[in-house]
Amino acid sequence: MTRERFERIKKFAADKETPCLVIDLDVIKQKYEELRTHLPFAKIFYAVKANPTDEVVALLRDLGASFDVATRFELDQLLRLGVAPDRMSFGNTIKKEKDIAYFYEKGVRLYVTDSPTDLDKISRAAPGSKVFFRLLTEGLGADWPLSKKFGSHPDLARQLIKMSVRFGLVPYGISFHPGSQQRDVGQWSTALTQVAQLFRWAKEEAHVELKMINMGGGFPANYVESTDPIAQYSEDIQRFLDTSFKFMGRWPEEIIIEPGRSMAGDSGVIVAEIVNIAKKSVHERYPWVFLDIGKFGGLIETLDEAIKYPIYFEAQGKAQSIIIAGPTCDSMDILYEKWTYTMPDKAKIGDRVYILTTGAYTQSYSSIYFNGFPPLKAYVLK
Amino acid sequence: MTRERFERIKKFAADKETPCLVIDLDVIKQKYEELRTHLPFAKIFYAVKANPTDEVVALLRDLGASFDVATRFELDQLLRLGVAPDRMSFGNTIKKEKDIAYFYEKGVRLYVTDSPTDLDKISRAAPGSKVFFRLLTEGLGADWPLSKKFGSHPDLARQLIKMSVRFGLVPYGISFHPGSQQRDVGQWSTALTQVAQLFRWAKEEAHVELKMINMGGGFPANYVESTDPIAQYSEDIQRFLDTSFKFMGRWPEEIIIEPGRSMAGDSGVIVAEIVNIAKKSVHERYPWVFLDIGKFGGLIETLDEAIKYPIYFEAQGKAQSIIIAGPTCDSMDILYEKWTYTMPDKAKIGDRVYILTTGAYTQSYSSIYFNGFPPLKAYVLK
Repeated sequence: MTRERFERIKKFAADKETPCLVIDLDVIKQKYEELRTHLPFAKIFYAVKANPTDEVVALLRDLGASFDVATRFELDQLLRLGVAPDRMSFGNTIKKEKDIAYFYEKGVRLYVTDSPTDLDKISRAAPGSKVFFRLLTEGLGADWPLSKKFGSHPDLARQLIKMSVRFGLVPYGISFHPGSQQRDVGQWSTALTQVAQLFRWAKEEAHVELKMINMGGGFPANYVESTDPIAQYSEDIQRFLDTSFKFMGRWPEEIIIEPGRSMAGDSGVIVAEIVNIAKKSVHERYPWVFLDIGKFGGLIETLDEAIKYPIYFEAQGKAQSIIIAGPTCDSMDILYEKWTYTMPDKAKIGDRVYILTTGAYTQSYSSIYFNGFPPLKAYVLK
Repeated sequence: MTRERFERIKKFAADKETPCLVIDLDVIKQKYEELRTHLPFAKIFYAVKANPTDEVVALLRDLGASFDVATRFELDQLLRLGVAPDRMSFGNTIKKEKDIAYFYEKGVRLYVTDSPTDLDKISRAAPGSKVFFRLLTEGLGADWPLSKKFGSHPDLARQLIKMSVRFGLVPYGISFHPGSQQRDVGQWSTALTQVAQLFRWAKEEAHVELKMINMGGGFPANYVESTDPIAQYSEDIQRFLDTSFKFMGRWPEEIIIEPGRSMAGDSGVIVAEIVNIAKKSVHERYPWVFLDIGKFGGLIETLDEAIKYPIYFEAQGKAQSIIIAGPTCDSMDILYEKWTYTMPDKAKIGDRVYILTTGAYTQSYSSIYFNGFPPLKAYVLK
């Protein structure tokens, strides 16, 4: 986020009560265009769950995005905002049959799957639909790994492809997710090699022409630890596609990506306040800095310190190492204890604190009223 | 929870959509009376955060309980329900000065503290009030430890006692929290030994007569791993009090406990549904069982599998080991993977599942709309 944008957000928030989240829609537009520029071959299915704010969804609707939808509640929201069902996929591998039926009734015809039981439900509740098969990937190198819960091994994926034909569904493509905030672009190489092998097997052994690759999300936002620019990811991914699909003489017809964090993350700033600065004993080295927002107010991704948000203090002074914690009566509500953040020693109780890159996976996670705190309030800057 | 009560809850929930939480108020009443019987010497300050449902608070109000209040939002709720301010303490060590002023304005005169900066705020915003000093305890043996974030070492506590006199406050007592769901009753021995030493020091060195011990919460609810009965805790604690306060010839005037989990935990049952049963590969040993509730729908205390809820499946059959996960597109939303739960092999997709002892620290934690899911719905059985 540029200095100018940040100043605009600070000014906007000046008279707002803390904690609050401010979303700058321009940043989302810019990120969308950046992905379009660097990955012009990919169709963008925005992962609504990253930031489901109406204004964000409406902007991406107007920009021409498609949408990766996790639940019937998200579907209802998108329909309310006038998104056509042919711009959606039901992208959650865990779904009730009645919810599949609901998606089908509303016109959605693209479904992910990773298990025979789920495929069975799709065949009954969404007959004739396109299905894509999610591969289990390892997520090594990802700050927020998605390693074991989703996807199947290739052996099972092959069975699912054959089953889908028997069930009268359209076996359409293969998906994987390299892990959210994936900093090792090599993960796409590993996954694409497996995907290409499945395309080949499907054609040669099952007489099925797969058409689509869904590369999931994984493109990073700007947290404390640096990542390659999106241009570098794109260049590498294109090379991996060339190499892996050489046997077909071309890339698959349709390539989908499901960015969430990389689109919304940088657009948000959480404005918080220092509630207390305290030591546990007189000579303790690291003071505890308590903010008025914590894990249950929207910063749950600080669990195990997985996501390290850049934190900006206005005050001047010598940098001192601190422990940062949230305001609830729960000792799990500590943000950073191992990764050492610093704070200028002139910072004081009552100062505002700006937590950057908090546009994704924050507000929608916040608890309804743990310790009585209301959910994080969000404002949208247009 | 008795079989009879459980059947009543099942029957009540039969026509309700899952997931939902059902709270049986009779259990809370019974737990309250059990604590009154076994710890008649202790004044009960219910930790509102454990389950802030209006009906629960109203019941405890009528039974004569006092309340441990975490935020001004909880205070507003209690005032709305007609609880008098002299039955409350502001029990959060992390508080804004304006919130202290708000509590003071509403009539609350009892405040916890653990740092000079916080005490400073109390002296300005709540002049002349009673303060108690929270000791840092280690929380070893607790399933949900409260080890490092709250409290000060005795050295700092001594300074705080002296400061409070200078500030015109009333140094009233010492508090500690042995850790939530504390299964090692010996932790009370360690803490009470320190507390007694501080009473002695205060009297002899600072000419301050401390009057109160706040022993926090920590009494357990019935999860998978067994605990001693409350009678055993009580007997041990009384012995520790006798020994530690022998030098005074009597116990301190006022003994406070802050039960939350032990009061509300056993009163609740979450009713959920099996969404999918799947394997990651053909011959995988443990199937994944996906429920329609997970970490973000109210079961956040399954983090690191800290709290192990008893889970009841209706079906018959041979017990098979399973992995249990929630319904969101987040791989962190796995409930139990290391601690092996079992499920009867006749259980199937669509079956109801009952998650017991979920009356505390569940519903109020649930996210406002992560993945679009609404917060956990709660019903109260009267």
